[in-house]
Amino acid sequence: MFELDPQLEADTALIGRTALNRMLLMNDSRFPWLVLVPKRSGVTEPFELTDEDQRTLMQESMIVGKSLKVLFNAHKLNIAALGNQVSQLHIHHIARFQTDAAWPRPVWGVGVAEPYDAEALYERIFSLQKALSKELDLE
Amino acid sequence: MFELDPQLEADTALIGRTALNRMLLMNDSRFPWLVLVPKRSGVTEPFELTDEDQRTLMQESMIVGKSLKVLFNAHKLNIAALGNQVSQLHIHHIARFQTDAAWPRPVWGVGVAEPYDAEALYERIFSLQKALSKELDLE
Repeated sequence: MFELDPQLEADTALIGRTALNRMLLMNDSRFPWLVLVPKRSGVTEPFELTDEDQRTLMQESMIVGKSLKVLFNAHKLNIAALGNQVSQLHIHHIARFQTDAAWPRPVWGVGVAEPYDAEALYERIFSLQKALSKELDLE
Repeated sequence: MFELDPQLEADTALIGRTALNRMLLMNDSRFPWLVLVPKRSGVTEPFELTDEDQRTLMQESMIVGKSLKVLFNAHKLNIAALGNQVSQLHIHHIARFQTDAAWPRPVWGVGVAEPYDAEALYERIFSLQKALSKELDLE
Protein backbone atom coordinates (compact mmCIF):
# COMPACT_ATOMS: atom_id res chain seq x y z
CA MET A 1 0.00 0.00 0.00
CA PHE A 2 1.32 3.42 -1.02
CA GLU A 3 2.17 5.97 1.64
CA LEU A 4 3.60 9.38 0.83
CA ASP A 5 7.08 9.94 2.25
CA PRO A 6 6.78 12.09 5.44
CA GLN A 7 9.37 14.62 4.20
CA LEU A 8 7.51 15.13 0.91
CA GLU A 9 4.27 15.44 2.87
CA ALA A 10 5.80 18.08 5.16
CA ASP A 11 7.24 20.16 2.29
CA THR A 12 4.23 20.21 -0.04
CA ALA A 13 0.50 20.82 -0.44
CA LEU A 14 -1.81 18.57 -2.44
CA ILE A 15 -3.02 19.87 -5.82
CA GLY A 16 -4.80 16.68 -6.86
CA ARG A 17 -4.54 13.03 -7.77
CA THR A 18 -4.60 11.21 -11.10
CA ALA A 19 -4.92 7.44 -11.42
CA LEU A 20 -1.12 7.22 -11.26
CA ASN A 21 0.20 10.27 -9.45
CA ARG A 22 -0.18 12.54 -6.52
CA MET A 23 0.45 16.07 -7.74
CA LEU A 24 2.01 18.21 -5.05
CA LEU A 25 2.94 21.87 -4.83
CA MET A 26 6.30 22.51 -3.18
CA ASN A 27 5.61 25.04 -0.43
CA ASP A 28 8.30 27.44 -1.60
CA SER A 29 6.90 30.64 -3.07
CA ARG A 30 10.22 31.47 -4.78
CA PHE A 31 9.52 28.97 -7.56
CA PRO A 32 6.36 27.54 -9.20
CA TRP A 33 7.33 23.94 -8.37
CA LEU A 34 5.26 20.79 -8.76
CA VAL A 35 6.18 17.30 -7.68
CA LEU A 36 4.63 14.17 -9.19
CA VAL A 37 4.68 11.10 -6.98
CA PRO A 38 3.58 7.81 -8.56
CA LYS A 39 1.35 5.98 -6.07
CA ARG A 40 3.37 2.77 -6.21
CA SER A 41 5.00 1.47 -3.07
CA GLY A 42 8.70 0.65 -2.95
CA VAL A 43 9.59 2.37 -6.24
CA THR A 44 12.70 4.56 -6.25
CA GLU A 45 13.68 4.68 -9.94
CA PRO A 46 11.48 5.40 -12.98
CA PHE A 47 12.58 2.17 -14.71
CA GLU A 48 11.05 0.16 -11.85
CA LEU A 49 7.58 1.27 -12.94
CA THR A 50 5.63 -0.99 -15.30
CA ASP A 51 5.72 -0.05 -18.99
CA GLU A 52 2.15 1.23 -18.74
CA ASP A 53 2.97 3.38 -15.70
CA GLN A 54 6.08 4.72 -17.50
CA ARG A 55 3.94 5.79 -20.45
CA THR A 56 1.36 7.42 -18.19
CA LEU A 57 4.09 9.17 -16.20
CA MET A 58 5.60 10.58 -19.41
CA GLN A 59 2.19 11.82 -20.60
CA GLU A 60 1.32 13.44 -17.27
CA SER A 61 4.81 14.90 -16.91
CA MET A 62 4.51 16.53 -20.34
CA ILE A 63 1.10 17.99 -19.46
CA VAL A 64 2.38 19.35 -16.15
CA GLY A 65 5.48 20.81 -17.80
CA LYS A 66 3.55 22.50 -20.60
CA SER A 67 0.93 23.82 -18.17
CA LEU A 68 3.61 25.33 -15.93
CA LYS A 69 5.39 26.92 -18.88
CA VAL A 70 2.19 28.48 -20.21
CA LEU A 71 0.57 29.46 -16.90
CA PHE A 72 3.66 31.24 -15.56
CA ASN A 73 5.16 32.26 -18.91
CA ALA A 74 8.36 30.57 -17.73
CA HIS A 75 11.70 31.03 -19.44
CA LYS A 76 12.62 27.35 -18.97
CA LEU A 77 11.42 24.16 -17.33
CA ASN A 78 13.54 22.04 -15.03
CA ILE A 79 12.34 18.43 -14.81
CA ALA A 80 14.20 16.02 -12.57
CA ALA A 81 14.06 12.74 -10.68
CA LEU A 82 16.88 12.91 -8.12
CA GLY A 83 15.92 11.23 -4.85
CA ASN A 84 19.26 11.50 -3.08
CA GLN A 85 17.60 12.62 0.13
CA VAL A 86 14.09 11.17 -0.27
CA SER A 87 14.29 7.87 -2.11
CA GLN A 88 10.55 7.50 -2.87
CA LEU A 89 10.25 8.20 -6.61
CA HIS A 90 9.18 11.80 -7.14
CA ILE A 91 9.64 13.98 -10.20
CA HIS A 92 10.25 17.71 -9.86
CA HIS A 93 8.74 20.14 -12.39
CA ILE A 94 9.93 23.69 -11.85
CA ALA A 95 9.16 26.84 -13.82
CA ARG A 96 12.36 28.86 -14.05
CA PHE A 97 12.97 32.54 -14.76
CA GLN A 98 16.12 34.48 -15.50
CA THR A 99 15.21 36.65 -12.50
CA ASP A 100 14.55 33.86 -9.98
CA ALA A 101 16.47 33.27 -6.74
CA ALA A 102 18.67 30.49 -8.14
CA TRP A 103 19.11 31.27 -11.86
CA PRO A 104 21.00 29.82 -13.69
CA ARG A 105 21.78 27.20 -11.06
CA PRO A 106 19.43 24.34 -10.21
CA VAL A 107 17.10 25.21 -7.31
CA TRP A 108 18.05 22.43 -4.89
CA GLY A 109 20.00 23.56 -1.86
CA VAL A 110 19.85 27.24 -2.83
CA GLY A 111 18.84 29.43 0.11
CA VAL A 112 15.85 28.59 2.27
CA ALA A 113 12.29 27.80 1.19
CA GLU A 114 9.86 30.69 1.58
CA PRO A 115 6.45 29.18 2.38
CA TYR A 116 3.35 30.71 0.78
CA ASP A 117 1.01 32.62 3.05
CA ALA A 118 -2.42 31.02 3.36
CA GLU A 119 -4.18 33.09 0.72
CA ALA A 120 -1.33 32.85 -1.85
CA LEU A 121 -1.18 29.07 -1.32
CA TYR A 122 -4.92 28.75 -1.91
CA GLU A 123 -4.75 30.89 -5.05
CA ARG A 124 -1.76 29.02 -6.49
CA ILE A 125 -3.35 25.61 -5.88
CA PHE A 126 -6.64 26.78 -7.39
CA SER A 127 -5.00 28.18 -10.55
CA LEU A 128 -2.99 24.98 -11.01
CA GLN A 129 -6.02 22.76 -10.50
CA LYS A 130 -7.87 24.81 -13.09
CA ALA A 131 -5.04 24.62 -15.65
CA LEU A 132 -4.30 20.92 -15.13
CA SER A 133 -7.96 19.87 -15.14
CA LYS A 134 -8.18 20.91 -18.79
CA GLU A 135 -5.99 17.96 -19.74
CA LEU A 136 -5.96 15.60 -16.76
CA ASP A 137 -8.64 13.75 -14.83
CA LEU A 138 -7.86 15.22 -11.41
CA GLU A 139 -9.48 14.01 -8.21
CA MET B 1 19.01 20.26 -39.59
CA PHE B 2 20.26 19.15 -36.18
CA GLU B 3 23.56 20.44 -34.85
CA LEU B 4 24.89 19.55 -31.43
CA ASP B 5 25.31 22.56 -29.15
CA PRO B 6 29.03 23.53 -29.07
CA GLN B 7 29.17 23.51 -25.25
CA LEU B 8 27.75 19.97 -25.10
CA GLU B 9 30.18 18.94 -27.79
CA ALA B 10 33.12 20.37 -25.85
CA ASP B 11 32.14 18.73 -22.56
CA THR B 12 31.38 15.22 -23.81
CA ALA B 13 32.50 12.23 -25.86
CA LEU B 14 30.24 10.28 -28.22
CA ILE B 15 29.07 6.85 -27.07
CA GLY B 16 26.72 6.23 -29.96
CA ARG B 17 23.56 7.23 -31.80
CA THR B 18 20.06 5.80 -31.86
CA ALA B 19 17.42 6.85 -34.37
CA LEU B 20 16.34 9.57 -31.93
CA ASN B 21 19.28 10.41 -29.69
CA ARG B 22 22.94 11.14 -29.52
CA MET B 23 24.27 9.40 -26.42
CA LEU B 24 27.14 11.32 -24.90
CA LEU B 25 29.48 10.67 -22.00
CA MET B 26 30.17 13.70 -19.84
CA ASN B 27 33.94 14.01 -19.67
CA ASP B 28 34.02 14.12 -15.87
CA SER B 29 35.51 11.02 -14.30
CA ARG B 30 34.00 11.85 -10.89
CA PHE B 31 30.57 10.58 -12.01
CA PRO B 32 29.32 7.99 -14.54
CA TRP B 33 27.24 10.55 -16.43
CA LEU B 34 25.43 10.14 -19.75
CA VAL B 35 23.59 12.81 -21.69
CA LEU B 36 20.86 12.03 -24.23
CA VAL B 37 20.34 14.66 -26.91
CA PRO B 38 17.34 14.21 -29.21
CA LYS B 39 18.44 14.98 -32.78
CA ARG B 40 15.66 17.49 -33.36
CA SER B 41 16.53 21.09 -34.13
CA GLY B 42 15.06 23.94 -32.13
CA VAL B 43 13.69 21.79 -29.30
CA THR B 44 14.30 23.02 -25.75
CA GLU B 45 11.57 21.29 -23.72
CA PRO B 46 10.54 17.60 -23.76
CA PHE B 47 6.89 18.49 -24.44
CA GLU B 48 7.92 20.08 -27.75
CA LEU B 49 8.85 16.64 -29.11
CA THR B 50 6.23 14.71 -31.08
CA ASP B 51 4.27 12.06 -29.16
CA GLU B 52 6.26 9.35 -30.89
CA ASP B 53 9.59 10.97 -30.01
CA GLN B 54 8.41 11.39 -26.40
CA ARG B 55 7.64 7.66 -26.18
CA THR B 56 11.01 6.75 -27.71
CA LEU B 57 12.82 9.15 -25.39
CA MET B 58 11.13 7.58 -22.35
CA GLN B 59 12.06 4.08 -23.51
CA GLU B 60 15.67 4.97 -24.23
CA SER B 61 15.97 6.96 -21.00
CA MET B 62 14.76 3.95 -19.01
CA ILE B 63 17.26 1.66 -20.75
CA VAL B 64 20.12 4.09 -20.12
CA GLY B 65 19.10 4.54 -16.48
CA LYS B 66 18.81 0.83 -15.78
CA SER B 67 22.10 0.10 -17.60
CA LEU B 68 23.94 2.73 -15.55
CA LYS B 69 22.46 1.44 -12.30
CA VAL B 70 23.45 -2.15 -13.06
CA LEU B 71 26.83 -1.51 -14.70
CA PHE B 72 28.12 0.69 -11.90
CA ASN B 73 26.09 -0.82 -9.06
CA ALA B 74 24.91 2.73 -8.32
CA HIS B 75 23.12 3.71 -5.13
CA LYS B 76 20.76 6.06 -6.99
CA LEU B 77 20.08 7.53 -10.40
CA ASN B 78 19.68 11.22 -11.06
CA ILE B 79 17.76 11.97 -14.26
CA ALA B 80 17.18 15.57 -15.27
CA ALA B 81 16.33 17.94 -18.10
CA LEU B 82 17.46 21.38 -16.92
CA GLY B 83 18.86 23.48 -19.76
CA ASN B 84 19.38 26.73 -17.89
CA GLN B 85 22.82 27.22 -19.44
CA VAL B 86 22.50 25.17 -22.64
CA SER B 87 18.97 25.42 -23.96
CA GLN B 88 19.19 22.59 -26.53
CA LEU B 89 17.16 19.74 -25.01
CA HIS B 90 19.48 17.28 -23.27
CA ILE B 91 18.69 14.81 -20.54
CA HIS B 92 21.26 13.99 -17.86
CA HIS B 93 21.53 10.42 -16.51
CA ILE B 94 23.96 10.19 -13.61
CA ALA B 95 24.91 7.20 -11.47
CA ARG B 96 25.24 8.40 -7.88
CA PHE B 97 27.03 6.93 -4.89
CA GLN B 98 26.98 7.83 -1.22
CA THR B 99 30.75 8.28 -1.50
CA ASP B 100 30.81 10.53 -4.58
CA ALA B 101 32.14 14.08 -4.77
CA ALA B 102 28.73 15.76 -4.52
CA TRP B 103 26.54 13.40 -2.48
CA PRO B 104 23.80 14.04 -1.43
CA ARG B 105 23.67 17.25 -3.44
CA PRO B 106 22.97 17.33 -7.19
CA VAL B 107 26.18 17.27 -9.23
CA TRP B 108 25.75 20.50 -11.18
CA GLY B 109 28.07 23.30 -10.14
CA VAL B 110 29.91 21.17 -7.58
CA GLY B 111 33.69 21.50 -7.89
CA VAL B 112 35.41 21.20 -11.24
CA ALA B 113 35.11 18.44 -13.85
CA GLU B 114 37.97 15.94 -13.82
CA PRO B 115 38.44 14.75 -17.41
CA TYR B 116 39.20 11.07 -18.04
CA ASP B 117 42.67 10.18 -19.22
CA ALA B 118 42.73 8.72 -22.74
CA GLU B 119 42.75 5.07 -21.72
CA ALA B 120 40.06 5.43 -19.04
CA LEU B 121 37.87 7.32 -21.49
CA TYR B 122 38.23 4.60 -24.09
CA GLU B 123 37.42 1.89 -21.55
CA ARG B 124 34.39 3.68 -20.17
CA ILE B 125 32.96 4.34 -23.64
CA PHE B 126 33.58 0.73 -24.64
CA SER B 127 31.88 -0.73 -21.55
CA LEU B 128 28.89 1.58 -22.02
CA GLN B 129 28.58 0.73 -25.72
CA LYS B 130 28.63 -2.96 -24.82
CA ALA B 131 25.97 -2.60 -22.10
CA LEU B 132 23.68 -0.33 -24.11
CA SER B 133 23.95 -2.37 -27.31
CA LYS B 134 22.15 -5.23 -25.57
CA GLU B 135 18.94 -3.24 -25.59
CA LEU B 136 19.44 -0.41 -28.08
CA ASP B 137 20.25 -0.24 -31.75
CA LEU B 138 23.40 1.86 -31.46
CA GLU B 139 25.27 3.28 -34.43
